[in-house]
Amino acid sequence: MTNRRYLLASRPEGLVGRENFDLVEEESPTPGDGEFVVKLEYISLDPAMRGWMNDTRSYIPPVQIGEVMRALGTGTVVGSEHGSFKEGDHVVGGFGVQELALSDGKSVITVDPNLVPLPTYLAALGMTGMTAYFGLLDVGEVTGGETVVVSGAAGAVGSVAGQIAKIKGCTVIGIAGGEEKCKWLTDDLGFDAAIDYKSEDVRAALKQHCPKGVDVYFDNVGGDILDIVLTRLARHARIVICGAISQYNAEGKMKGPSNYMSLLVNRARMEGFVVFDYADRYAEAGMQMAGWMAEGKLKSREDIVEGFENFPDALLKLFKGENIGKLILKV
Amino acid sequence: MTNRRYLLASRPEGLVGRENFDLVEEESPTPGDGEFVVKLEYISLDPAMRGWMNDTRSYIPPVQIGEVMRALGTGTVVGSEHGSFKEGDHVVGGFGVQELALSDGKSVITVDPNLVPLPTYLAALGMTGMTAYFGLLDVGEVTGGETVVVSGAAGAVGSVAGQIAKIKGCTVIGIAGGEEKCKWLTDDLGFDAAIDYKSEDVRAALKQHCPKGVDVYFDNVGGDILDIVLTRLARHARIVICGAISQYNAEGKMKGPSNYMSLLVNRARMEGFVVFDYADRYAEAGMQMAGWMAEGKLKSREDIVEGFENFPDALLKLFKGENIGKLILKV
Repeated sequence: MTNRRYLLASRPEGLVGRENFDLVEEESPTPGDGEFVVKLEYISLDPAMRGWMNDTRSYIPPVQIGEVMRALGTGTVVGSEHGSFKEGDHVVGGFGVQELALSDGKSVITVDPNLVPLPTYLAALGMTGMTAYFGLLDVGEVTGGETVVVSGAAGAVGSVAGQIAKIKGCTVIGIAGGEEKCKWLTDDLGFDAAIDYKSEDVRAALKQHCPKGVDVYFDNVGGDILDIVLTRLARHARIVICGAISQYNAEGKMKGPSNYMSLLVNRARMEGFVVFDYADRYAEAGMQMAGWMAEGKLKSREDIVEGFENFPDALLKLFKGENIGKLILKV
Repeated sequence: MTNRRYLLASRPEGLVGRENFDLVEEESPTPGDGEFVVKLEYISLDPAMRGWMNDTRSYIPPVQIGEVMRALGTGTVVGSEHGSFKEGDHVVGGFGVQELALSDGKSVITVDPNLVPLPTYLAALGMTGMTAYFGLLDVGEVTGGETVVVSGAAGAVGSVAGQIAKIKGCTVIGIAGGEEKCKWLTDDLGFDAAIDYKSEDVRAALKQHCPKGVDVYFDNVGGDILDIVLTRLARHARIVICGAISQYNAEGKMKGPSNYMSLLVNRARMEGFVVFDYADRYAEAGMQMAGWMAEGKLKSREDIVEGFENFPDALLKLFKGENIGKLILKV
């Protein structure tokens, strides 16, 4: 049995592409003492992966050239010399872009596919959902009755963040690209409004939908949209910096928000966070989110691309804005 | 007796200049019921005045064309029909750039020139000092042992903010332009280090002076220096947005901080504030600051330009970085 793996071949300048990866075939790994082997079934595709490919100081070290590309994934234990993980267990962890992963169990959790389908553990009930939950509630400090704007709203994190804001009793406006995404936000997820940045004047639409200004802006995109939202802040607004997907493939410097002095005028703040810091509260958030899903208040949508060999093209869908909900590669 | 007044003649594009003001001579005002007249002795010159000249939505309405230029000032009551202010009282308030001001007493306080010289009520014991105090302590949430960086450190607010951080037991690094300013910060005010951005590599100097990163950055300048400090943040850093003097005279858009994603990497925040929001705590801050001054821990330095007619050129000194400490016009 062999193991196909995507290794980082080169650091992208600008848009990531197939040429930045090497697809190699290696012998399947054998677990040593305290180790186990996972057969991956689903691999999580996240905008953050683009950042991990850059050779810059960040919240985790970059992937090195020749290393397997870092990714979260879920699958089944197929061989184990580990006390806590046994054959047949379903697990979620940072297994990388490969068919078979060797693991020592660190930061790996077991999950039950009878409760929700396995891909959901990479979506609303996974890191994606945790990111939305802690970003919105702990960093954004959202309270009922506030006006919340989410960018990248039809993406994995954005769609969950917006739904949580609705559950908390907020007026929620999503910004997304294209009619289909916007329709999904309002018709299926219950957003109060959706702004199609590809066909609408975002500034005018925000003025219309947020007459009292924006209390919380959950930002996944950065760039021009961040700059526009800055002009519509309410007093004491909070901008949650979750990502800046519009800028990840920039070849020069990123675009900084030139309207940032709106933070002064409106006594507002802009704050970043990394979901890993909330690890000791994942259980709390997971139970809460699972409860909301069971009540039908929170929907998880996965956009599944089939075929391990399609990884590079599937990843590109994120940056082209082609996914709706959580983008996942089915091995 | 006549009253000389500087009216806003036109809105500056780029650098403010003499042509943006009209110096007019009018009849001296007569107080009606509930009013008094102040003979101005000192007028406060502040970077914020540049913003008040723009026709944009901000934390207070812009000065209108033909109106007297807005400014804080201090002087003596020379005629009164007001119950609480009598002839001979020394007062501080928003009296505008003029020799004589009519006031209804709103937001005016009486001060005692026997405790500290009158100009100090526009400096460390005035709005300037309040801005430093609340910005550093309430917005920046500075605690002892932290590394604090202040830009515009030899300016009115910056020099006070840095001194308060020293009083609180922090390591304080000032960024200022020129040897004289830097020498003042370290030799007279007790800053741990000063970086001359005109002759030093700010990035390298920050690395040297802040080996554990920057916990609090009190920003008065914006622009490139803000972008450089963003690359040196410690985890959970706070950036206090007090001003952006390097950008106030920009003809196009302001420069946004392109390294703002450092907020995410470092779980940091950037927050703006307006000192007026702390009005109900001015007394607390004033007593604290006066106490520190009496103990010799806090120094107020005023840079006084003489001659009412020199107002436009005096104001320009701020944007050319020519003042050390609080710039004040002596009428």
